[in-house]
Amino acid sequence: MPISPTATVTSLVAQLAEQLERRGVQVTTAESCTGGAIASALTERSGSSVWFEYGFVTYSNAAKHALLGVEEAIFEQHGAVSQACVEAMLHGALRVSGAAFGVAVSGVAGPGGGTPEKPVGTVWLSWGERDHRPHSSCFQFQGDRQQIRQQAVIQAVSALLGLAEK
Amino acid sequence: MPISPTATVTSLVAQLAEQLERRGVQVTTAESCTGGAIASALTERSGSSVWFEYGFVTYSNAAKHALLGVEEAIFEQHGAVSQACVEAMLHGALRVSGAAFGVAVSGVAGPGGGTPEKPVGTVWLSWGERDHRPHSSCFQFQGDRQQIRQQAVIQAVSALLGLAEK
Repeated sequence: MPISPTATVTSLVAQLAEQLERRGVQVTTAESCTGGAIASALTERSGSSVWFEYGFVTYSNAAKHALLGVEEAIFEQHGAVSQACVEAMLHGALRVSGAAFGVAVSGVAGPGGGTPEKPVGTVWLSWGERDHRPHSSCFQFQGDRQQIRQQAVIQAVSALLGLAEK
Repeated sequence: MPISPTATVTSLVAQLAEQLERRGVQVTTAESCTGGAIASALTERSGSSVWFEYGFVTYSNAAKHALLGVEEAIFEQHGAVSQACVEAMLHGALRVSGAAFGVAVSGVAGPGGGTPEKPVGTVWLSWGERDHRPHSSCFQFQGDRQQIRQQAVIQAVSALLGLAEK
């Protein structure tokens, strides 16, 4: 029987919660294409208020600028689905929230919005620790809009777990 | 066959999208106990970027104050699960986002955190139009944490639909 994506996320969040509680630190999220699904997955867990306080859903460039301080030049030079954008989103989320760890995501969930350079399923993820260099990675997910978002959530929570386990 | 909560939400969001697109207006969300689940439900719909830009996940009092401008006195006098708090959250979300319509939610999703006055399942919702008096309602949902959050999402999207249909 295949493991459902939901079960995978629940299990990852449980492991993340244990590590964050052990360390006494918090996480924050800055979401574009996942639109709140990472924050929702984290807070589905009872007791998550101990390690999660701030989540930013910045679905437009204006919101990324206003809430997270992403500079206009980044959109002009790199676009919103780019390493520069997710790193700026992460930086803003960590600064505003004061959390120790964070994750930021921006991608093309589809079915519209794809281009030859950034087809549907292209998702940039950045994750890291406050006052440290961020990690970033570009994924090319397959499937429909829901599946692309779900895979982005799984990667985001996995990335946070990787940070917290160190 | 019972209608699944997910199907209900998807259908409500579809109706909401149609009304928002017809009117050319946007919505915003300010979420405590639903933790991003409303924003996630809205953005599950393709094309939602036309009418959704800003979502605030403010899971702590500090976050409600910092992102939405909820005053400390409200927490002291009424608590975070109160009409005063959700109305202040809504006011802040509408102000920061510039959206025409918004919804704010704060409640006790459980299983912990209940009190005799505010048992698990108590959820305050506020919804309204920018520069107008907000509507507010207190719900007493039954079920487990996931079911309580899901019912809050359904009520929140229904409330936005009620505004947009007028």
